[in-house]
Amino acid sequence: MRLTTPTLLLDKKKCLGNIERMVKKARENGIRLRPHFKTHQSAQVGAWFRDYNIDAITVSSVRMARYFANHGWKDILIAFPANVLEIDSINELASRIKLHLLVVNVETVEILAKNLRHPVQLWIKIDTGYRRTGVLANNHKDLNKLLQKVQESDKFQFAGFLVHDGHTYKQTDTYAIQTIHNTSVYLLQLLRERYSGQFPNLQLSIGDTPSCSILHDLSGIDEIRPGNFVFYDLTQQRIGSCTFDDIAVCVTCPVVAKHPRRREIIIYGGAVHFSKDALPQGDSSLVYGRVVEFTNDGWTSPVPGIELVSLSQEHGILKASPEQFAKYNIGDMIGILPVHSCLTADLMKGYMSTDGEMLEHLSGVPQRELVSL
Amino acid sequence: MRLTTPTLLLDKKKCLGNIERMVKKARENGIRLRPHFKTHQSAQVGAWFRDYNIDAITVSSVRMARYFANHGWKDILIAFPANVLEIDSINELASRIKLHLLVVNVETVEILAKNLRHPVQLWIKIDTGYRRTGVLANNHKDLNKLLQKVQESDKFQFAGFLVHDGHTYKQTDTYAIQTIHNTSVYLLQLLRERYSGQFPNLQLSIGDTPSCSILHDLSGIDEIRPGNFVFYDLTQQRIGSCTFDDIAVCVTCPVVAKHPRRREIIIYGGAVHFSKDALPQGDSSLVYGRVVEFTNDGWTSPVPGIELVSLSQEHGILKASPEQFAKYNIGDMIGILPVHSCLTADLMKGYMSTDGEMLEHLSGVPQRELVSL
Repeated sequence: MRLTTPTLLLDKKKCLGNIERMVKKARENGIRLRPHFKTHQSAQVGAWFRDYNIDAITVSSVRMARYFANHGWKDILIAFPANVLEIDSINELASRIKLHLLVVNVETVEILAKNLRHPVQLWIKIDTGYRRTGVLANNHKDLNKLLQKVQESDKFQFAGFLVHDGHTYKQTDTYAIQTIHNTSVYLLQLLRERYSGQFPNLQLSIGDTPSCSILHDLSGIDEIRPGNFVFYDLTQQRIGSCTFDDIAVCVTCPVVAKHPRRREIIIYGGAVHFSKDALPQGDSSLVYGRVVEFTNDGWTSPVPGIELVSLSQEHGILKASPEQFAKYNIGDMIGILPVHSCLTADLMKGYMSTDGEMLEHLSGVPQRELVSL
Repeated sequence: MRLTTPTLLLDKKKCLGNIERMVKKARENGIRLRPHFKTHQSAQVGAWFRDYNIDAITVSSVRMARYFANHGWKDILIAFPANVLEIDSINELASRIKLHLLVVNVETVEILAKNLRHPVQLWIKIDTGYRRTGVLANNHKDLNKLLQKVQESDKFQFAGFLVHDGHTYKQTDTYAIQTIHNTSVYLLQLLRERYSGQFPNLQLSIGDTPSCSILHDLSGIDEIRPGNFVFYDLTQQRIGSCTFDDIAVCVTCPVVAKHPRRREIIIYGGAVHFSKDALPQGDSSLVYGRVVEFTNDGWTSPVPGIELVSLSQEHGILKASPEQFAKYNIGDMIGILPVHSCLTADLMKGYMSTDGEMLEHLSGVPQRELVSL
């Protein structure tokens, strides 16, 4: 198949390698892997996990939960503060799968208790340092209130405490990531001690890609929920979560113009393909992607001397060394590793696997086929 | 209709007001308005322009050209360096509409000359200072070469010289924008003088929203191609292109969590809804959107004391004053003006107009309904 427009390529072998390593690590640590499917959002990529006996997954919206439920997944955690406005969709889902919801505030628990028609697994989101959302781990007053409300309703089975250490994404040092992870595990274990009398089966769930990729010892918790590891990207390579060769997605973009004097190559590939996420460089410039060369069965590591340095809506600008500049002609396709694969996949709305298969992404599924109730 | 998830609202009255002002300005200056449809990418919004006798439009991809051609537009300029890989789609379009292409390099002209099966209008992209792409206005050597190639083929009708002054987006001062515009008009007029003997009908086209919105005198050229003005956004308000009350789109987002101690409100609304474009503040912090209040027939100007300060994939964090924080409860909808309406609309994939009509966006049209040849 001849590609003519920006296309997201997916290297199935690399992707399966990434899945396999994470499955093995979870098994060695004796914990459940509940992969976050928000990175790929693809029924077909999701199905690859089934071969590794994965049967419980994480998503970040009710819409995503419906999509994967429609594709046969029966145990789904929506790892996002429950959106009570979607109660009708939540009830529909809870009637047919084992649905896990996440709460932060007492008000949410009260609204859910009043409006749920089927029981759900309820997790409390704990904040151990990321400061996006969640109850602070030492805020026992709010936790007591929440747990009391949870106990008052027969609609909830209290599942446990859940953390997302998003602040590991800002680190590039194993020791810093280890420290963040240890802190979270320690704080979660204190919570388990405090509340296990009341809830003997409560579980601890944690789940950022850097910790799960870099650290060997993931003991002390019950479940990990990494997502990005399925593809990885330049951000994860910089953090140390993966090598360049583990990055399983690559955007291929047509060359549409060349500027010899300043050695810039204009590609059809912009913010509507890559997103505006960038890697800050030492000199405070930004890089939006790195160029690879295509091989018979995939692509190389990034080549030196050429980088994606600017994006507008549909244009990208590559800055190149004389050798790299000379290599590319108008009408060539250039392969570019993305800075943030989750956002790139969401924008690209589908994949072509390196063996020629077309794979869907939820963002390319028409709204009308997955209308919310 | 009860909204339950992030939804892009479109105020039709504001939008028509924006269209009307630009139509009037073009008429007063005696020039053609060829609006850029990449901002709305909507058949329905496009149709609103017809009532103002607009019959020629600008788009930024072959796919967008096909979409609007399928919706009855017959005179379409693809204001993006021609992607020769899409020659089959280009030929199909050229067979049924008056198609305008843009070129920067001789190689592109050669490939087009060899492969076009129907004549097209050909524009040369000129760079008058933005430095994204285009032939430098004083590079007569390259221009001569390009024009010679254009003349050698019967597939081309040379249309003229085209500029996009994207560097006006970095200005917040009318004088700076006036200077950029004057420079471009002057350089384009020098080109007209130089080449009008050879091409007596050559036209001059220019088209950034800041210049077209702020300046009164747009004489000396033949055509303007602004796009963003149809909706405007916080970026254009800061530049001075519009007032807050001209901004015609607003994302409404559910409140999913509240953090009283740090007065932060978590909304369902993240980078996959807004894009990561941000407005840098005086203290070097970033703002991703400003909050408005809903009224009977639309929304207010931004209210002080509450701002969208952080985005991850699906989460947004609003920082609020005590008064603003107290106003919002779990399950409320909050209206937020976007920083960059083009990218927000592309991500949201459709609109709900303030009179309840659902309007499509090309990014929500299934790929299979608009497959490239």
